[in-house]
Amino acid sequence: MKILHTVAELRAWREQQGHISFVPTMGNLHEGHLALVELAQQHAPVVIVSIFVNPLQFGAGEDYTRYPRTLADDVAKLSTLGVQAVFAPDVTELYPQPQRYHITPPDLANQLCGAYRPGHFVGVTTVVMKLFQLVQPHIAVFGQKDYQQLTLIRGMVADFAVPVKIIAGATIRAADGLALSSRNTFLSPDERQRAPLLYQQLSRIQQALQQGQRDYAQLENAATDTLQQHGWQVDYIRICDPQLNPADAQTQQWVALGAARLGATRLIDNLSI
Amino acid sequence: MKILHTVAELRAWREQQGHISFVPTMGNLHEGHLALVELAQQHAPVVIVSIFVNPLQFGAGEDYTRYPRTLADDVAKLSTLGVQAVFAPDVTELYPQPQRYHITPPDLANQLCGAYRPGHFVGVTTVVMKLFQLVQPHIAVFGQKDYQQLTLIRGMVADFAVPVKIIAGATIRAADGLALSSRNTFLSPDERQRAPLLYQQLSRIQQALQQGQRDYAQLENAATDTLQQHGWQVDYIRICDPQLNPADAQTQQWVALGAARLGATRLIDNLSI
Repeated sequence: MKILHTVAELRAWREQQGHISFVPTMGNLHEGHLALVELAQQHAPVVIVSIFVNPLQFGAGEDYTRYPRTLADDVAKLSTLGVQAVFAPDVTELYPQPQRYHITPPDLANQLCGAYRPGHFVGVTTVVMKLFQLVQPHIAVFGQKDYQQLTLIRGMVADFAVPVKIIAGATIRAADGLALSSRNTFLSPDERQRAPLLYQQLSRIQQALQQGQRDYAQLENAATDTLQQHGWQVDYIRICDPQLNPADAQTQQWVALGAARLGATRLIDNLSI
Repeated sequence: MKILHTVAELRAWREQQGHISFVPTMGNLHEGHLALVELAQQHAPVVIVSIFVNPLQFGAGEDYTRYPRTLADDVAKLSTLGVQAVFAPDVTELYPQPQRYHITPPDLANQLCGAYRPGHFVGVTTVVMKLFQLVQPHIAVFGQKDYQQLTLIRGMVADFAVPVKIIAGATIRAADGLALSSRNTFLSPDERQRAPLLYQQLSRIQQALQQGQRDYAQLENAATDTLQQHGWQVDYIRICDPQLNPADAQTQQWVALGAARLGATRLIDNLSI
């Protein structure tokens, strides 16, 4: 497995490849990431994974500096899976000067998580566009756990006609339902035990919708109340259509999304219905 | 020569090509464009030219609807030159839905021409990024006549690591010095005769700088005054460094740029010194 740290190394490697698929990550790889890699392997003979904690997508006061960085462990896991290359650039390799040109996504970027993380999705779409230019993959795999991110990247790829096919990987969960996330490592043992409540509340909404309930506000408020009663600070619980428009009377398919903080740790999750 | 009108046709053509160079245009091709095509031919065996009047880069009240569209003539000229392909999409082919994701360039996009054409360079950089994704050229050629556009595209390509080498083509001028431009066709015979004055004033600045004059404001004001006395409406005359920062005492190389209106026609020009 090739470990590429510079753009020049990446370009040289890319020139020798045919059909390739790409899994962009921020590292600290867990089973969720590895499932995305296995999905990528089903779609192309060559897989490259990027590991880059992207400062552009972190706001002031967010967890950029303490975000877990575990390159050696990550490389070992990817090597075991038979990944062909890892692109793990330094910040100065990817941003030799401060980024001056950005992607401006539509207003969806300011809603849901975007309302609580100003600039986050500008940083995400900008780095993903840049990584696509660098890696030039035919296929890229993103997790459904970051549903809003996935939606915005799909939109960007369509609007700019980026020649990359986007594949979504299902959310991988712990046995108790908690969606796997690098940020789970921030949870204390007590918080970890309480953490599945977010998933449980989204599951309740799922069941209610399946049973024909359509009072979205009531369902959202009930889930919010329950989380708050259990000590969570809720950013939002929202029932949307698959394109992340607010669900209305015509909606036939839904996504229930939530973001909430347990102590200092912000968790997100979603369920498609 | 292939005439490609749809994205599907373009992608199918692209898959069969090796090293290609690309000349994006808005059509109504004149000798300036053809010189860019010849430059492109020197850099790659296969040349594709796009012809697309991009609505995104025209503001309200600008000349989008009356911008000259001469596809048959353009195709004949390109065919004579031996160009391999023309990409001439409809607006609905390039924008099947309104563009929701844009490039946001740095503040330079709001200066010089950008101060008089709000949103223009967002539209330019966005369509160029999209055309690059569609055409996937190795080389792209832009005219130095649109110096600010060239500078912003170079910046975008660097910041997003777009795998395209940008080549600049020299401005082609009429015998009397007027820079060739599709908008010259809007000039009345009288205006056409007076139009070289913009170039003449930039040439005066060039001579003055070469003779050691450094009072930039005085040079800019003198050129502006002369143009105004001859009935021009001057947007700006500006002396900058090659990166389009305002020239200062340390500047060793200059670009003198001007934009001014003669009747309803807005002309731009620049000289590197």
